[in-house]
Amino acid sequence: MRELLVIGIGAGDPDQVTVQAIKAMNRADTFFIIGKGDEKQALVDLRTGILDEHVHLDYKVVEITDPPRDRTPTDYEGVVEDWHERRAAKFEAEFAAEPGVGAILVWGDPSLYDSTLRIVERVLARGRVTFDYSVIPGITSVQSLAAQHRIVLNRIGEPIHITTGRKLAEGLPDGVDNAVVMLDAHCTFTQVAEAHSEIWWGAYLGTADEELISGNLRDVEDRIVARRAELREKHGWIMDTYLVRR
Amino acid sequence: MRELLVIGIGAGDPDQVTVQAIKAMNRADTFFIIGKGDEKQALVDLRTGILDEHVHLDYKVVEITDPPRDRTPTDYEGVVEDWHERRAAKFEAEFAAEPGVGAILVWGDPSLYDSTLRIVERVLARGRVTFDYSVIPGITSVQSLAAQHRIVLNRIGEPIHITTGRKLAEGLPDGVDNAVVMLDAHCTFTQVAEAHSEIWWGAYLGTADEELISGNLRDVEDRIVARRAELREKHGWIMDTYLVRR
Repeated sequence: MRELLVIGIGAGDPDQVTVQAIKAMNRADTFFIIGKGDEKQALVDLRTGILDEHVHLDYKVVEITDPPRDRTPTDYEGVVEDWHERRAAKFEAEFAAEPGVGAILVWGDPSLYDSTLRIVERVLARGRVTFDYSVIPGITSVQSLAAQHRIVLNRIGEPIHITTGRKLAEGLPDGVDNAVVMLDAHCTFTQVAEAHSEIWWGAYLGTADEELISGNLRDVEDRIVARRAELREKHGWIMDTYLVRR
Repeated sequence: MRELLVIGIGAGDPDQVTVQAIKAMNRADTFFIIGKGDEKQALVDLRTGILDEHVHLDYKVVEITDPPRDRTPTDYEGVVEDWHERRAAKFEAEFAAEPGVGAILVWGDPSLYDSTLRIVERVLARGRVTFDYSVIPGITSVQSLAAQHRIVLNRIGEPIHITTGRKLAEGLPDGVDNAVVMLDAHCTFTQVAEAHSEIWWGAYLGTADEELISGNLRDVEDRIVARRAELREKHGWIMDTYLVRR
């Protein structure tokens, strides 16, 4: 039975990788990189740095470029569904062509806002290649955010809510006063109406370019918006996340 | 300036520890173990195993027993508050007595349902000892659960809600259809009324005793309740967590 390893590699710092992930990386013959095809060189370099630091054997890297995707669909879920099927077919062809143990490296953790496991399940469901697979968890940017700000995500007895910019814009559910927001390209925190909210924001977490801002939301929101724009201009890309608490 | 390291060590598997945590553990002179004083030998052994596997220098372990705590308070938050203050005073005294770099090992991640950072902030606020501290994130039992079941915690575009058994019993907020439940001693999943819910349950995640059950909630809930009771009897303790999705 062929084997596939889906490995969480943390938010960017090679030291954030677990021993389990290092052992898994050293069992892989081929690393499949699934991406948009316009991946920022900085991310490629970070990942290469992680492999070079931790993998002591020869390995092969196969890049699989995502099929094109409508970024502003009206039928959001339908478009994502179709896109996943096309991604699965591409991965299936590449995986079938490479003998030995395969691995897919995932930034953060494969269990959190990542589509890799859905692709893998889809490939299995298509039934053209058979394999066993296992998942190795990794440190997420949410955990990096909390560690660098030295905060606990929940207040005592309260839930933790991890959501998207899109969902934050719709308003948090009743009874949810803390939210970690990922995938927010639009500074949706500026739409949080409650006075006396606090924010802990971080960008490029786990990398040498890491930036942190925290404070009363109304006091610091303009500074975050401005700094985010500056950094995006400077680096050509940005990945950020934040906790907002009302 | 004295230094304190708050280190997440994962859910139990020594391989789940990150390189960052290993480096931090090897910088520590003294490990402070904060606990109930009735810690199960299995947990002590797991932690000792992690230290023995990863720390290659001499180290000292100081155990700090929690002050007693009312487990069934009517004023839940007030009782927890007072208890944290007494815990802080105990830690302060022990930390002041030990020279060098101190470390506190935290199961999982210090940012998730853990009181260590609150104790540390409280000690700093008391102002009797001064020190700098940093936080090293760790893999949580939630991440172990997802990895072992090979699931993504969120459905596409949906939030992830991490909550307690107590909160689940009150009902999930509107718009929340997925919940990861921690700290549930009462099998609260049996109170989830919705038909067609699914559950992914795990106990002793990351350890040799790990057990997993998943399926339609109504089909498997009795089996989980029975198995949980059996395991608790057999091992003398249990730590479990689950994802329930309606």
